Amino acid sequence: MSDVTRPEINKVVLAFSGGLDTSVILKWLQQTYHCEVVTFTADLGQGEELEPARAKARLMGVKEENIFIDDLREEFVRDYVFPMMRANALYEGTYLLGTSIARPLIAKRQIEIARMVGADAVSHGATGKGNDQVRFELGYYGLNPDIKVIAPWREWDLTSREALIAFAEAHQIPIPRDKRGESPFSTDANLLHTSSEGKVLEDPWAEVPEYVFSRTNSPEEAPDTPQYITIDFERGDAVAIDGEGYSPASLLAKLNELGKTHGIGRLDLVENRFVGMKSRGMYETPGGTILHIAHRGVESITLDKGAMHLKDELAPRYTEMIYNGFWFTPERRMLQAAIDLSQENVTGTVRLKLYKGSATVVGRKSPVQHNLYSADIVTFEDDAGAYDQRDAEGFIKLNALRLRLLGRREGL
Amino acid sequence: MSDVTRPEINKVVLAFSGGLDTSVILKWLQQTYHCEVVTFTADLGQGEELEPARAKARLMGVKEENIFIDDLREEFVRDYVFPMMRANALYEGTYLLGTSIARPLIAKRQIEIARMVGADAVSHGATGKGNDQVRFELGYYGLNPDIKVIAPWREWDLTSREALIAFAEAHQIPIPRDKRGESPFSTDANLLHTSSEGKVLEDPWAEVPEYVFSRTNSPEEAPDTPQYITIDFERGDAVAIDGEGYSPASLLAKLNELGKTHGIGRLDLVENRFVGMKSRGMYETPGGTILHIAHRGVESITLDKGAMHLKDELAPRYTEMIYNGFWFTPERRMLQAAIDLSQENVTGTVRLKLYKGSATVVGRKSPVQHNLYSADIVTFEDDAGAYDQRDAEGFIKLNALRLRLLGRREGL
Amino acid sequence: MSDVTRPEINKVVLAFSGGLDTSVILKWLQQTYHCEVVTFTADLGQGEELEPARAKARLMGVKEENIFIDDLREEFVRDYVFPMMRANALYEGTYLLGTSIARPLIAKRQIEIARMVGADAVSHGATGKGNDQVRFELGYYGLNPDIKVIAPWREWDLTSREALIAFAEAHQIPIPRDKRGESPFSTDANLLHTSSEGKVLEDPWAEVPEYVFSRTNSPEEAPDTPQYITIDFERGDAVAIDGEGYSPASLLAKLNELGKTHGIGRLDLVENRFVGMKSRGMYETPGGTILHIAHRGVESITLDKGAMHLKDELAPRYTEMIYNGFWFTPERRMLQAAIDLSQENVTGTVRLKLYKGSATVVGRKSPVQHNLYSADIVTFEDDAGAYDQRDAEGFIKLNALRLRLLGRREGL
Amino acid sequence: MSDVTRPEINKVVLAFSGGLDTSVILKWLQQTYHCEVVTFTADLGQGEELEPARAKARLMGVKEENIFIDDLREEFVRDYVFPMMRANALYEGTYLLGTSIARPLIAKRQIEIARMVGADAVSHGATGKGNDQVRFELGYYGLNPDIKVIAPWREWDLTSREALIAFAEAHQIPIPRDKRGESPFSTDANLLHTSSEGKVLEDPWAEVPEYVFSRTNSPEEAPDTPQYITIDFERGDAVAIDGEGYSPASLLAKLNELGKTHGIGRLDLVENRFVGMKSRGMYETPGGTILHIAHRGVESITLDKGAMHLKDELAPRYTEMIYNGFWFTPERRMLQAAIDLSQENVTGTVRLKLYKGSATVVGRKSPVQHNLYSADIVTFEDDAGAYDQRDAEGFIKLNALRLRLLGRREGL
Repeated sequence: MSDVTRPEINKVVLAFSGGLDTSVILKWLQQTYHCEVVTFTADLGQGEELEPARAKARLMGVKEENIFIDDLREEFVRDYVFPMMRANALYEGTYLLGTSIARPLIAKRQIEIARMVGADAVSHGATGKGNDQVRFELGYYGLNPDIKVIAPWREWDLTSREALIAFAEAHQIPIPRDKRGESPFSTDANLLHTSSEGKVLEDPWAEVPEYVFSRTNSPEEAPDTPQYITIDFERGDAVAIDGEGYSPASLLAKLNELGKTHGIGRLDLVENRFVGMKSRGMYETPGGTILHIAHRGVESITLDKGAMHLKDELAPRYTEMIYNGFWFTPERRMLQAAIDLSQENVTGTVRLKLYKGSATVVGRKSPVQHNLYSADIVTFEDDAGAYDQRDAEGFIKLNALRLRLLGRREGL
Repeated sequence: MSDVTRPEINKVVLAFSGGLDTSVILKWLQQTYHCEVVTFTADLGQGEELEPARAKARLMGVKEENIFIDDLREEFVRDYVFPMMRANALYEGTYLLGTSIARPLIAKRQIEIARMVGADAVSHGATGKGNDQVRFELGYYGLNPDIKVIAPWREWDLTSREALIAFAEAHQIPIPRDKRGESPFSTDANLLHTSSEGKVLEDPWAEVPEYVFSRTNSPEEAPDTPQYITIDFERGDAVAIDGEGYSPASLLAKLNELGKTHGIGRLDLVENRFVGMKSRGMYETPGGTILHIAHRGVESITLDKGAMHLKDELAPRYTEMIYNGFWFTPERRMLQAAIDLSQENVTGTVRLKLYKGSATVVGRKSPVQHNLYSADIVTFEDDAGAYDQRDAEGFIKLNALRLRLLGRREGL
Repeated sequence: MSDVTRPEINKVVLAFSGGLDTSVILKWLQQTYHCEVVTFTADLGQGEELEPARAKARLMGVKEENIFIDDLREEFVRDYVFPMMRANALYEGTYLLGTSIARPLIAKRQIEIARMVGADAVSHGATGKGNDQVRFELGYYGLNPDIKVIAPWREWDLTSREALIAFAEAHQIPIPRDKRGESPFSTDANLLHTSSEGKVLEDPWAEVPEYVFSRTNSPEEAPDTPQYITIDFERGDAVAIDGEGYSPASLLAKLNELGKTHGIGRLDLVENRFVGMKSRGMYETPGGTILHIAHRGVESITLDKGAMHLKDELAPRYTEMIYNGFWFTPERRMLQAAIDLSQENVTGTVRLKLYKGSATVVGRKSPVQHNLYSADIVTFEDDAGAYDQRDAEGFIKLNALRLRLLGRREGL
Repeated sequence: MSDVTRPEINKVVLAFSGGLDTSVILKWLQQTYHCEVVTFTADLGQGEELEPARAKARLMGVKEENIFIDDLREEFVRDYVFPMMRANALYEGTYLLGTSIARPLIAKRQIEIARMVGADAVSHGATGKGNDQVRFELGYYGLNPDIKVIAPWREWDLTSREALIAFAEAHQIPIPRDKRGESPFSTDANLLHTSSEGKVLEDPWAEVPEYVFSRTNSPEEAPDTPQYITIDFERGDAVAIDGEGYSPASLLAKLNELGKTHGIGRLDLVENRFVGMKSRGMYETPGGTILHIAHRGVESITLDKGAMHLKDELAPRYTEMIYNGFWFTPERRMLQAAIDLSQENVTGTVRLKLYKGSATVVGRKSPVQHNLYSADIVTFEDDAGAYDQRDAEGFIKLNALRLRLLGRREGL
């Protein structure tokens, strides 16, 4: 692509992990665009030290005031993970969207930093085949319609790992020992999940090797005794575990620990990417899986049927919006408004059993002002007139009326 | 309700299990309507002997030609369970509809028998608070708009178990020893599942006691070693396990065994009934749970994204139709037509790991003429031009265009 | 139904028009339930004097403090008609819900009055075959779960007009001269519309006779010259006509005048009632029709595509909720929240041509901070780089990718 | 774009109208790709002579066997327009998709011809800003995943009309006199509609000038006397007008005449293009508008409520698929299967009044074996027991149960 006419760039904010790939990008941006590079490194709970990223940026000549390192964990869980959990979002019936939901926040923060430092461009390390490029860039453009976007993986000639390492060596970029050889798969991580894809995972018939998992024990190695926990919810959001209050991020971290111990939240999936291909991935979402199951549990006694069924119908669309990167859009906000309204009374406590890969709701209760379950009405015993069984006849007869009229026509 | 004006009934077809309740109903119908009673006992795989029902019917004076006992297991799985499984139907995100899906078939057979024997009425033993009365009666009316329906539980005065037993004793109806005392919960069973509800289950905070479960080992008692199986699918339906072909009913029976062994398919749920109340139930769906998970697995490599996402959007409506009893309706048939069309290429093999309560997809493959997964395209490695990464830029730019126009407006 | 056991009623709030039917109901309630009757007469813009209702109530012995006459026109349009218009709600593709939308407000006011006067029951004059009984009663129960509801048409023996008139004569209830004979059809009216159904309209093949119409000129008699008007919208609601500001009710009244003159808003329809039967009706919605068309017009330049298409998908469900009487439900409120959020920028002006039965949008504009239409981008002329046509190639290629993979499979 | 690396093309099938634009494209393809050009000219009822296209192709050196001229009118209406009409498809509430629905057929025929003549590429004259490029190319790729696509408007440098005319002059391409000057707008036409957009129409506040309309009289000039017609439908498709049978295309042609006379089917619209921008267009769909209205009319007495409401919910998605060019996709076929199933009994006759811009249903009837309307049941008169009004109480009570439980919670 040597013939590409590149736009003039003055200053670019790069989403910078400090790893090999984004280090190469940093250098490549400096060389190719002859522009000032601002690095942004976010703590989303991926479990890595961030200070090395600072050192690395310095080493590559990034000015002190151009190095941004932010702890976004609470914002991530409170404003992204929790709203999504309220919707019971499951992509293609199974995936809890751990990568998808992090991208809008990173994009938002990059655009904020660009505004602060007067940058005219942003850049990211996502490849040209994946969903993340779309999620980043739809976020960028939605928040700043005039921003310039540089996606090095779609532009440069470094299309193999060898080329990347050669570039790094040629430019004195430190290469972690374990990156020398071929990594057998590629990962992304944050407080909600770790994803793995590529290489050894590309054969969808082959079982995921145990060494790919990093966030969960295998169910076989999990304790032989179940553990019971309770989670308290207020207005749709989890606020306490076993009666102890937590902030959003620390609550998710605590559930991650519990989930890890019991081998909960592994998912081996072939999914449909927004860009039109199928890919096989492996996800570990220990705490998020528990949260998802518990949320359904508290909804089951506090949410009206009409609201629940409407939510269930809207969920696939909402989920697809997040997966595809349409977080900062009117349509996602519209559905969020509907979903959030439904959560006003989703307050109560769920009791779960964690055991060898499974989280199971075994009990749920709610304060009387939020509870909709009534044993008095549903009971097989005498209900003291709470429900008149004869009403059912009329209910059925009128629901059947159109079917009877249909039947008469068909009987002709 | 002694003042109820009852319609003239000539002959009634009763859904008759041979148990205490339907035996009392049989007698009550004879006494109250002074009509001929035809009994219909279906084998839906509930795991009970049917011949005792014949003896009981005879004992209560039902004529030989009025006793119908049918093995409906294959029809049940082939024409009801499998079509529903094609839709990945999950009521309120979790329930596999084991009771709901059996009712239409019973209703259909009752109406067929009524036609054969010249009966003008049908009757069932479902109570006035539940969903089953609706499912039965919508089926009846949809298939014969002029049929008369007798729902004894909504009509009679036998509103307590004591009254029922007193009636039985007064009429020499044999009472099984275990029915003398209060049964601690109520059950329904067929080849797909066993449901339990009522009494000890009415407190949704209390864990379901282990003695309630009848179809599955507890995960704790399941084998400590995982078992791997394969399931072959053709056009959306399972046809073989571990390479061995089965008929629909025998396949489900085999999966039930496997699920039982590994403690798979237990569900403790508070659900919204169609009649407007919440109830707590416990379901055991061992084979059906495995089937559901496996079906998603084979779809993941054979079903186009557009088809899959449309299916996911339609599924909540489809599911609600079945739960509410609208099986024999134009709208259910319409959705079935759409779903069935999508399954033309859902042919392939899924490999599952069964372990301590979980069934997990660990591999999936499909013959090349059905497969849509392509490692050549998705690979992180060089794809030899199968996908042009530069296309992604235009894709993103045009998806973002409206968002940029929105952003410009908001920036004003 | 002489054997019905009637509940004890202390005081009942009757929706009372002052016409023959509700006058008979008033007397019948007094006689049958031996209770105090409170009359509630609402001005919803039906175009009738309300004071005669007061006189009639007095005449029949209703205490002065038990007579309520309220002008609800502004509340009706502001809180019911306008929110519904934001959704572009059309039942079965054509009907603007003029009757449906008025019922919740009447129900709400009855429940408020019941609370004020300490009544334990409410009553209405809707028949047992229609939708209105459902809409009233779902409103009642939703706002006061313990209220008792009396629906005389479902209870009494006055099943023919002769019986009704005989009852009136026997109880000195004044009978309007034109009610002596059979009215050839039945009507309901409010500021939004007039509906007519029954009798001469029951043959759906016969054209509606001209004498049935009361709110609109026939298109043939409308002026031969078109009239052009503008309507200004703010945040989704109409606020001005031809630049002159109006309150919600007065704006709708003004549009009704314009629509009447030009013969706009007649609808002859066979519709599906919630209770399961089809009925033929004729509706006149002069101002509402103009409003509906104009609202689409202003949305077309101010509403984002994602928001609009989501609205269009949600509209049938929202519409059905209103038609069926589920206004005061969580699910309707959820959809309303989504819809209202979308209207934040629906601010602008629509120009319409009114002519012989049609209202047509001929122009629309919006202030720059709300407008999303950009001639600079869409132009066939040189757009100075606003849009890069080459982006379309990538957009198409990635949208096509899954279809190409499908095609390859099918080509095997 | 002189630096574009062009693929090797051997033979290309061009959608060729014979007009200036596609003539220039023909020449440009010959020059640029040095390949054999096959021209395909379709009669879709656009109302132009096709033989001049043959002469022009010859003149530009296209071999006799490479000139394809097909009359596709019947196929167009029968297999594209009619299936779409069954769905009552309206894009953004108003547009009948006249352009969208023609593109898949043209694409399909081009691919068929490519197969016949052994061409490896196809080409079209749609611009890079519009929807049609997407519709053509999704069609191409869906039907032949390996086809090469040439979109000259996205490739060449002829970005102004002057450049185009200069190119034509330089290559002896005849230029129609009226193309010399700037055409004041751009059009597309087929048997279903004529669309106009661009230039004088780009100001959405300015009324469309009368000279833009070509297919309809203005309502003001339409006859002062209404005309009544009947349309017969069988299984959802129109088959006769005023009792006289027509083939699909001739029926639509006849309705076009009637619509033209009465000024029916004009639409002035700002719409959202798939590519992300809003555009203003004017559509004339005289016969299609009548057909759409009539189809709703016949459905109103023959289609079950459940089927109709499901159709109404699916219609926006279905419509968007067609608008965006996803005709040849699994998801469109799935919805079509559902819709077509619903039409089995949509057989009957609709009577319409055509008058000054409006088509209004004034009567509808259906043979008894298809009809679902029953005056016996709906009547205000005594219905002889066809409907038991007391059923309504139970119907309402159970529909209200969850709302009452909600109300109790809120009353706490």
